[in-house]
Amino acid sequence: MERIEHHASFKGRQEVWQHASASTGTDMKFGIYLPPQALAGERCPVLYWLSGLTCSEQNFITKAGVQQYAAQHGLIVVAPDTSPRGPGVPDDAAYDLGQGAGFYVNATQQPWAAHYRMQDYVAEELPALIEQHFPATQARGIFGHSMGGHGALVTALRHPGRYRSVSAFAPIAAPAQVPWGQKALTAYLGSDPKVWADWDAAALIAQARAERLPLLIDQGEADEFLPQLRPDLLQAACEKAGHPITLRMQPGYDHSYYFIASFMGEHVAHHAAALRG
Amino acid sequence: MERIEHHASFKGRQEVWQHASASTGTDMKFGIYLPPQALAGERCPVLYWLSGLTCSEQNFITKAGVQQYAAQHGLIVVAPDTSPRGPGVPDDAAYDLGQGAGFYVNATQQPWAAHYRMQDYVAEELPALIEQHFPATQARGIFGHSMGGHGALVTALRHPGRYRSVSAFAPIAAPAQVPWGQKALTAYLGSDPKVWADWDAAALIAQARAERLPLLIDQGEADEFLPQLRPDLLQAACEKAGHPITLRMQPGYDHSYYFIASFMGEHVAHHAAALRG
Repeated sequence: MERIEHHASFKGRQEVWQHASASTGTDMKFGIYLPPQALAGERCPVLYWLSGLTCSEQNFITKAGVQQYAAQHGLIVVAPDTSPRGPGVPDDAAYDLGQGAGFYVNATQQPWAAHYRMQDYVAEELPALIEQHFPATQARGIFGHSMGGHGALVTALRHPGRYRSVSAFAPIAAPAQVPWGQKALTAYLGSDPKVWADWDAAALIAQARAERLPLLIDQGEADEFLPQLRPDLLQAACEKAGHPITLRMQPGYDHSYYFIASFMGEHVAHHAAALRG
Repeated sequence: MERIEHHASFKGRQEVWQHASASTGTDMKFGIYLPPQALAGERCPVLYWLSGLTCSEQNFITKAGVQQYAAQHGLIVVAPDTSPRGPGVPDDAAYDLGQGAGFYVNATQQPWAAHYRMQDYVAEELPALIEQHFPATQARGIFGHSMGGHGALVTALRHPGRYRSVSAFAPIAAPAQVPWGQKALTAYLGSDPKVWADWDAAALIAQARAERLPLLIDQGEADEFLPQLRPDLLQAACEKAGHPITLRMQPGYDHSYYFIASFMGEHVAHHAAALRG
């Protein structure tokens, strides 16, 4: 494991690490913010961020403004890349499939199955690595944006007890019912919608497999991708299943990091209340 | 004048505009943050940001986290590009000369003189444009980073009475005495050091041409470009001339936007005190 970037930030340190991942069979990069409390030797809870389509580990750490709030609340924040990468890794010319678009599933279909095991990576391998090598407690939260909002919701719902808190910005909330999701789930998992249901937040809520972890979701009303996101379907599933959800429609906001940054403070506070409360 | 981007941000709006500039003879872009107070119809003071080498108008608006604080204090924040650009504009293969590296001077030498009139642009044309087309008062502050920190200091010192406040992050504080500055000043203005003195913050302070506008400067102690910046020379000039300066050496911080974001709140508060006080 090698540290490839480090920058002082809000009296803590933003770092980027690279390591050989057993899950993906590739080198993977992740950003990690160590708050001042961690630098002073205190073990801190860890908040995981999953990014959206086309992102690497860089977008979130440079644009979301999370460091200020993480420093305030004493949270470590970890932000991995969105897929395996490299010349030996299958890819697709489209922005919404292949490298940069792993959808946080474990692929079963060719040519993806060998490397695209992002669910194992974010839910198992990465937390184990973080808890071994950094001053982290086992208190975990998870959040993300768009494809990464889907990833955060699904990862939390598939692993009852593993996360104390979850939230999302403009998540792909019902991937089995929208074009982005149907394309990716078909490519990575095959064409059986019964299989897709294990990777769809709205469907997981309906199955009542999950514990009742409250969902906090912010969604811009001016988001140009709203037909791909469908938080209304997730909200309906939650209401039917009695699963607690706070869906906030934010007038005027789009799908960009300007939207994310505007509500980052409230999301980090939501996680801090569960992780340090 | 055409608006080419707009995004809701902290209850205000981050926009990018493009217009034909009389100063540079090219199309120029600038970012402008309109705080919620401006959207509600209130005229607001304007804080100008000048970016560093290689930057466009995008770096600052996406990475510095200024919008949060501008919304809090009710300031408009304007961030122009760092040079004229385009196929008809002279350039240099090096990152520190030509497009992306205008140094905020009015060039007198060939091939630069026709388009590289960034001082006229940032000190005259842009404020006139902003005050005509946006809900702006004539209360102006100016700040910047690295080459743009030099630009902010020099622009304020060259125009007594035009700005109520000035600050800088890791400015090129004595360009006539460092390689970056000597290269650019020679290319744009010729080889006479007497001419350079009109474009060098430390030299302007020594000339006592300027009003006694207090300088606030943050400088990272781990900044890899410190030999190009030399805030110590500016501080010595201020001490000799009795010009008020607060130079804060920040342990561990480098030259990046992580450094800028960490102290952005304090800089905006410094300007707000002068602009709204």
